[in-house]
Amino acid sequence: MIQTTRYNVQTLTTFVEQLFMKAGADVDVAQVVTRVLLEGELLGHRTHGLNLVSRYIDGMLSGQVKARAQALEQVADSGISSVFDGHYVLGPYCVSRALDCAAAGATKQGIGIAVVRRAAHIGCLAAYLKPYTDQGLLAIVYSSDPSVGLVCAHGGIDPVYTPNPIAAGIPTQGEPILLDVSMSTVTLGLVGQCRDAGRRLPHPVLVSNDGQLSDDPDDFFTRPQGSILPLGGQAFGHKGFALALLVEALTSGLAGHGRKDAPGQWGASATALVIDPRMFGGLEAFIDETSFLGGLVLASRPLDPERPVRLPGQAGLALRRQALEQGVSLSPQLIADLERVAGQLQLPGLFQ
Amino acid sequence: MIQTTRYNVQTLTTFVEQLFMKAGADVDVAQVVTRVLLEGELLGHRTHGLNLVSRYIDGMLSGQVKARAQALEQVADSGISSVFDGHYVLGPYCVSRALDCAAAGATKQGIGIAVVRRAAHIGCLAAYLKPYTDQGLLAIVYSSDPSVGLVCAHGGIDPVYTPNPIAAGIPTQGEPILLDVSMSTVTLGLVGQCRDAGRRLPHPVLVSNDGQLSDDPDDFFTRPQGSILPLGGQAFGHKGFALALLVEALTSGLAGHGRKDAPGQWGASATALVIDPRMFGGLEAFIDETSFLGGLVLASRPLDPERPVRLPGQAGLALRRQALEQGVSLSPQLIADLERVAGQLQLPGLFQ
Repeated sequence: MIQTTRYNVQTLTTFVEQLFMKAGADVDVAQVVTRVLLEGELLGHRTHGLNLVSRYIDGMLSGQVKARAQALEQVADSGISSVFDGHYVLGPYCVSRALDCAAAGATKQGIGIAVVRRAAHIGCLAAYLKPYTDQGLLAIVYSSDPSVGLVCAHGGIDPVYTPNPIAAGIPTQGEPILLDVSMSTVTLGLVGQCRDAGRRLPHPVLVSNDGQLSDDPDDFFTRPQGSILPLGGQAFGHKGFALALLVEALTSGLAGHGRKDAPGQWGASATALVIDPRMFGGLEAFIDETSFLGGLVLASRPLDPERPVRLPGQAGLALRRQALEQGVSLSPQLIADLERVAGQLQLPGLFQ
Repeated sequence: MIQTTRYNVQTLTTFVEQLFMKAGADVDVAQVVTRVLLEGELLGHRTHGLNLVSRYIDGMLSGQVKARAQALEQVADSGISSVFDGHYVLGPYCVSRALDCAAAGATKQGIGIAVVRRAAHIGCLAAYLKPYTDQGLLAIVYSSDPSVGLVCAHGGIDPVYTPNPIAAGIPTQGEPILLDVSMSTVTLGLVGQCRDAGRRLPHPVLVSNDGQLSDDPDDFFTRPQGSILPLGGQAFGHKGFALALLVEALTSGLAGHGRKDAPGQWGASATALVIDPRMFGGLEAFIDETSFLGGLVLASRPLDPERPVRLPGQAGLALRRQALEQGVSLSPQLIADLERVAGQLQLPGLFQ
C-alpha cells in the first residue's frame, strides 16, 4: 500500500495559490487555476489534478505559459457569442472565463457560447462544471489541440486529430451528472501509462504506422507515430470519428485557428456552451426529467452483480465528498514534487 | 437484381406534396415534409426517405398525426432560444421550423437554439442540414423519444433510453460534412431488418432480458424486451452512455417533457442548434479549417486498400448528385406503396 498524507482543502488551496502567485500569476488567475486543479484532484482525476501544478509553473518560469489576466484577449463579442485569444495563458483561467462569459449569455437569453484559441493546457474538463450546475445551468465544454495528431479517421491509418473530449454538467434534484468523455477509444494518457508500466492496453485500440491493429503501446510511440482508434473501434468507429470532426469544428473551426495554422506550441482550442433551462421548459421540469432518467438508470439491473450501474460523475463526486470531509490524500511523489516547486520559488513547504 | 424506375425529382416532389395536401396538410407543411423525406431518399437513407410517406399519411388519416402549421405552438422565445410544442404535427415540419428559428438567432447573435417537444416522427436527421450549410451555418440536431426505451445504461441490462442521435452539418469550401450518428451501437431499424431477414447482427451488441450479450435479434424482441448496447460497447460504453444522457438533457430535459411524463404516443423531443461562424473567427477561417481537416482525413492511408477513407456524408452526397442528374430510383415495392396511398386519396398515380 502506498502511504498517503491527508491535507485540508483550504490549506492546500492557499499553498497552491501562493505557488502560482510567487511564480508570477495575477491573484485571480492563481485562484481560478488552483480551484480547477484541486477540483480535478478531488474528483479523483489524479493525472489532471495537482500533479499539473509543477508542469504549469515550469511553463510559466520558462516563459511559454502566461499568467496575467489581461493577456487573455476577447476578440469577438455579440452579447452571447464570444471568442477569446488565450495567447497561451494558463488554460484553466481561459476556460473558466469562457464558461463565465457563456453563463452570462445563458442567463440573459437562454444560451451563451464562448470559444478560446491558444489556451495553455486546460486540465480535466470535468473539473470546470460544478459551479455552473450548482446554479441550475447546463454547461458543456469541448476541446481539441490543433498542434497534435493522435487519432486516425475511421478506416484510416494516419493520426489526424486529437481525442477531442466532450464534457457536460447536467443539473438534477441532487448531485449533478458530470460527464467527460473523449471521442477516441482511449486517451494518450492511458497509452503512456501502459508504456511506462510495461503493460499492454486492455483492448487492441491502436494502429501501428504500417496499419496493424495493436494493444502494444510501443506500436504507438514510433516514428512515424501510430494512431488511436476513434470511439466505436473498428466496428462503429465512424461514429466517434464523426463526433470528433464536430468537436474540431466547434473548437478550432469557430476559433478561426487550427490545424491549417500548424501551431508549433501545444495549446488548446476550447468551447464553452452554457444553457439556462429556465428560459426553456423551466428549471423544475428540467431537473425533474434528469432526475427521473437518473433514477431509471440507477434502478437498472447490472450485468455484473458486483458492479451496480452508476451515473457519470457519481464515483468522482463521492470521492470529492470524502476528500472535503476527511482531507485530500496526496501521494509522497506529488508532495515531493510540490515541495520542490516551493523550494524553487523560495516559499515554505506544505509542512512548514 | 431488383428492377428500379428512375423519377425526376420535380415530378416526385409535386406528386408527394399533393398526397400530403389531399390528406389534409397545409401547403407549407406538405412542401417542407416532402422536401425532407425526398432529401433522405436522395442521400440514400432508404429507410428514412419516401418509404415514410405512407406511414405519415396513415398517421394523418387516423388522426394521430397533425398537419396544420398552426398546430405547432411556440411556447417560449427569448430571441435566440425557443421552445415549441409540436402537438404531434408531422415531425419534419416541426424540426425544420426549429432549425429556421435557431438559424435566425444565429444570424443575429452567433448562436440560436430551438427545442421541440411532441413532434411526430422526424425521419432522417441528416436530411435537414444542407439548407443551413449552404448558408455557411453550422447546424446540429439532437433527438430522443421519451415514449420508448431501447438502449441500456453502461453496465446495465434494462432498456432505459433511445439511440439519441446527434446530427450536424459542417460547411467546408466544397461539399459539407454531414454526420448523423446514434449514441447506441446500432439502431432499432437494423435490429428489425436483421430479424426480418433471419440474420444475426454483425456484432454482439444486444443484451437479452436475462443479461446475456447476443447478436441474435430474437433476444431483443422478447417480453420483457432486450436492450441495445451504448456506443462503445462493453469496453467503452460509458462514453456512448454519457453522451446519450447529454442528448436526453438537451432534448427532453429542455423541452420540459420527457420520460417522467410517460407519454403514451410515439413522439420525438428534438433540439436544433445553429451557429454562424461569421460571429466567431469568421466564415473564411472556419471553412479553411474544416477543409484543411477534411483534406488531412482524405489523405489518410486506408487500413483496407479497397476502402479509401471518406468524410461523413460524402457517400450520401455522391448519391444525391447522381439522383439529381439521372433521376431517383425507387423500388417496385415503394412505388406500389405510393400508388396505394394515391388511390386511397383518389389522386392519380405516378404514371398517370
